[in-house]
Formats: sequence, structure tokens, C-alpha cells
Amino acid sequence: MKTLKDYAGIVNRRLEEIPAVVEENRCVIGEMPWLLSQSMRYSVSAGGKRLRPSMLLAAVEMLGGDVNAALDFACAVEMIHTYSLIHDDLPGMDNDTLRRGRPTNHVVFGEGQAILAGDGLLNCAFETMLAAACARPERAADSLLAIREIATGAGVTGMIAGQVMDLYCEHNRVSTPEALDYIQYGKTACMFIYPLRAAARLCGADEADLAALTEYGRAFGLLFQATDDLLDVVGTQDDMGKTLGKDAESGKLTCVSAYGIDGTRALVERLHRQALDALGRFPGRAGFFADLVDSMVNRTK
Amino acid sequence: MKTLKDYAGIVNRRLEEIPAVVEENRCVIGEMPWLLSQSMRYSVSAGGKRLRPSMLLAAVEMLGGDVNAALDFACAVEMIHTYSLIHDDLPGMDNDTLRRGRPTNHVVFGEGQAILAGDGLLNCAFETMLAAACARPERAADSLLAIREIATGAGVTGMIAGQVMDLYCEHNRVSTPEALDYIQYGKTACMFIYPLRAAARLCGADEADLAALTEYGRAFGLLFQATDDLLDVVGTQDDMGKTLGKDAESGKLTCVSAYGIDGTRALVERLHRQALDALGRFPGRAGFFADLVDSMVNRTK
Repeated sequence: MKTLKDYAGIVNRRLEEIPAVVEENRCVIGEMPWLLSQSMRYSVSAGGKRLRPSMLLAAVEMLGGDVNAALDFACAVEMIHTYSLIHDDLPGMDNDTLRRGRPTNHVVFGEGQAILAGDGLLNCAFETMLAAACARPERAADSLLAIREIATGAGVTGMIAGQVMDLYCEHNRVSTPEALDYIQYGKTACMFIYPLRAAARLCGADEADLAALTEYGRAFGLLFQATDDLLDVVGTQDDMGKTLGKDAESGKLTCVSAYGIDGTRALVERLHRQALDALGRFPGRAGFFADLVDSMVNRTK
Repeated sequence: MKTLKDYAGIVNRRLEEIPAVVEENRCVIGEMPWLLSQSMRYSVSAGGKRLRPSMLLAAVEMLGGDVNAALDFACAVEMIHTYSLIHDDLPGMDNDTLRRGRPTNHVVFGEGQAILAGDGLLNCAFETMLAAACARPERAADSLLAIREIATGAGVTGMIAGQVMDLYCEHNRVSTPEALDYIQYGKTACMFIYPLRAAARLCGADEADLAALTEYGRAFGLLFQATDDLLDVVGTQDDMGKTLGKDAESGKLTCVSAYGIDGTRALVERLHRQALDALGRFPGRAGFFADLVDSMVNRTK
């Protein structure tokens, strides 16, 4: 069984090959300016865990599909994730100057170029998937369904919807549990759910498989966000009251601010069980996904 | 023969129906926040000429294709055009506060929401095309090719490449004719060329039709931009020297700044001839496109 690290390695190697994100002298698609390539590459290669694309590939493998044919779809998912981080960090949004210890895209390339690097990555994700799909015309219908899943997850009822609501709630100091659920489902869970659904589409999976992966993606995504929120508190300072106070002051809506630490831990437990239950659909084949959700519950970073 | 106004009317009616750009109480796809719908709609309904989507539909009609089946592709082209204007107007880019006499998107909704409205329109363009394509699985291969054309035109070797170069040249005061050609090809011509190519793909057209439409789109797009640059000078002030001086001072690279007024007029003449020549491929069927390019040469606004 392959590990997250194995899949991440496969994704990283392919990301290096995709023309749009390689250096000038290897830029073989058309006439993309070096500056665009460089700025897209800067953020794509900033070194994430490649969680989303790895999960897509692992799902394809679990369903007996062609991992190689799915690889560009996985890379596209990572490009979309990366674009969302670039735009999220912009001065007009969260105004973050550091991400993973490096200056954010707009700090290095300027605000205008960072907006375009984000636009470029989103568009390039579709260019990449469409090129892969056109290379297999005999699978065109499945490819269309897969691309559509990813577009839906990233889109105006998915990730972008979550971002809009997040920004709105921050500016208007809305902090209801309903708003939190909406934001975390859109911003975080959708980009786990829909890449997994895309994997199912690529394999021509049936509705029951699709439903199980959707449920796993939802539970996993919300758990991922809840543990992230928890670590923000527990990881940074022992005096939790103070840190919670800081979060509340900045108006940031998190699981911890909405449910408290104990409430969030109970939520994580519940989501953990739901994720494992969903894997019941794939007996003996879901080791990767069971291990992955276990590791998230116990993560310290 | 339908006119531009006829096609624009068809596009406008359909844009009203597409869930993502309609009012809250008619928003039927999923859970998109009203604010996102409203901000996307604000710019989509700002009242452009609908030139690009109309040309796509006219090309489908000329090639004997199904105009109705192409309609959502046309709407997607307009969404992409609109997103590019929203992002172009942002403070980090051109920092424009007015467009077509109305406050720009970020002035009304704030910078963060305007970034997301643009992201939303780009993503929604793909969601819209993919939904239309999935509704006709028997035409999946042609649909994939069509979506890919549009993605290419909007993408990292097309429109976005032009934007990146434009911003770079403005900041670094680059004003060579080569830079101008690159920028105008990417920023303007590509979003005429590739929607026309998409029309050809939807009709299963042959390589010769594809090549003729590509050439018409290139000549038309560059002519459109050249007459735009010309009107900026001739239209605003009789004292052309002064107006040219202002353009040069602001560092804006235009046909007029690169080739002068007479040079630009000669360029328009040359492009006009090239556009009409390309239509030789479609004898007796290209009335719409011949009229359209004639009207551009003589336009006063």
C-alpha cells in the first residue's frame, strides 16, 4: 500500500513536468511569460503536504482505476488549492505576508502579478485537465464528469462560496455556528469531497461508491479543519483563555470559538467515527484512508 | 440573417437564467451566498456589447451547428470577459473606479469580494460549460475540445499572459512594438480567436474552417484594439499631440504610441483586408462577420 508520502512524490514529479509551472527554458506551451511561470511556480512549489491530490490518486487506486491517467487531475486540484491560498493572502483579503515561513506571493511579485498568478493557476488547472481529457477521447464522458466535480468543489457553491461567506462574516462580525458550518464546509470540506468524487467519476464508479467517498470527504475535511483550529489554540500557548481571547478579538470564527475546546474535541471524535463508517463501503481496500484520518486526529502539526 | 443585437439579446436572456448570476430567490444551484451572486451579477449585467459570445453563436450558425446547444458556451465567454475586467480594475492592477459610467466592482463590494466575484465568474464559466457538456454525453469529445479552446484563450498562454506582460511593461516602462503586439494579441485577440475556435469544435468543423476562423479572430481582435486605441486619441481631444503626450506620460502602450495615428490607420486597413480575406473560406455565409468588421473600421464609439 502506498503512503501519503509516495503519492505526494508522484504529484510533485508531475507538477515539475507541467509546462506552465516550469522554468522559462523548459516552457513548451506557447508563449507564457517567464514572470507568470515563475510566480505560479513560486507558490506551487512552496511545499504543501499534497493532501488533496494524493487522496484523489489513492481513491483511483482503491477503485481499481488508472492512476497514471488521473495524475493531471490530481495536479489540477493542487493548482486550485494553491491559487486559493494566493488570493486569500492578498491585502484585500487576509493580508498575510508569510505562508509556510516564506513571503507570500504578492510580497514577492507585487499585488497585481499575484492576482494574475492566482487566476493563472485556476485557469491552468482546467487547461491541464482538459488536455488530459482530450488525450483520451474514448473516455470523454467520464472525463467531463470528473472535471465538473472539481469545478463544482472549487466553485460558486463550493470553495468560493465559503470564502465569500468567511470574508462577509469577518467584516460584519457574524459568528453563529451556522455561519461557521457553512464556511468550513465550503472553504475546506469541498476541496476534499469533490476531488474524491472526481476520482470516482474517472473510474466510472457507481452511486454507492460516490456517496461513500462524498461522506468520507465531508467528515475528513471538517475534521481536518477542526484539528487545525484546535492546534491553533493548544499548539501556540498554554494559557488557552488568552489565546481564545485573541481569536475572538480578531473576529476569527473557528471551531474552538464556536464550540470550545472540549466541544471541538467531541466534534473531532464524531467526525472520525463518521469517516471510518463511510469506509465500510470499501472493505479491505481503504487502508490508506483509514490511516489518514487516524493520523489527522492525532496530529500535532 | 441575425444581427449583433439579435445575438446579444439571446445571450442576455440566457445570462439571466444561469443560476449563478440571478437573484437570491431564484438561485437554484446549491448554496451560493447572495452576496456572491449579487456581485457577479453587478458586473455581468453592466451592459457590454456581448461581442464575443455573439460572434461564437454567429459562427455556430454559419457552420450549420446547433445555436441553442452552444448558448451556454457563449455565456461562459462573457463571464470570462467580465471577470477579466473586474480583476483588471482592482487597486493592485489598473485601479479604475469607473467602468461604463458605473462604479467598478471593488468600489461597490470591496476589494476582497471583487477578487472573489472575479474568481467566481471564471470558475462559473467552466461550471456552466461543463454542465452543458454533461447534458449531451453523445457529444462529449467535441464539447471537451470546445471547452479546451476557451480555456486556452483565457489562459496562461492567452489572455492572462497578455495581462501579465501588460502589467510588467507598465511598471518597467517597456514600450517596444514587440511588447505591444504580445500584449494586444494576448489581452484582446485571444478572446476573439478562441471562442470562434470553440464554435468550430462544437460543429465538428474541419481544420480549414478552424484555420480561417482563427485568422479572422486574430485580425478582428487586433483591429478592434487598434480602433479602440485610435478613438482614445481622436475621440477625446482635437489636439492629438497633447493627448498622445498624456498617454506616453502615463506609460500606456497603445497602437498610437507605437505606430502613430497614420501608422495605426494603415494597420487597421491591413487587418481589415486580412479579416475579409479569411472569410473567403465561407462564401455566401459570412455576411455577419463581414458586416461586423466593416462596422468596427468605421466606428466612432
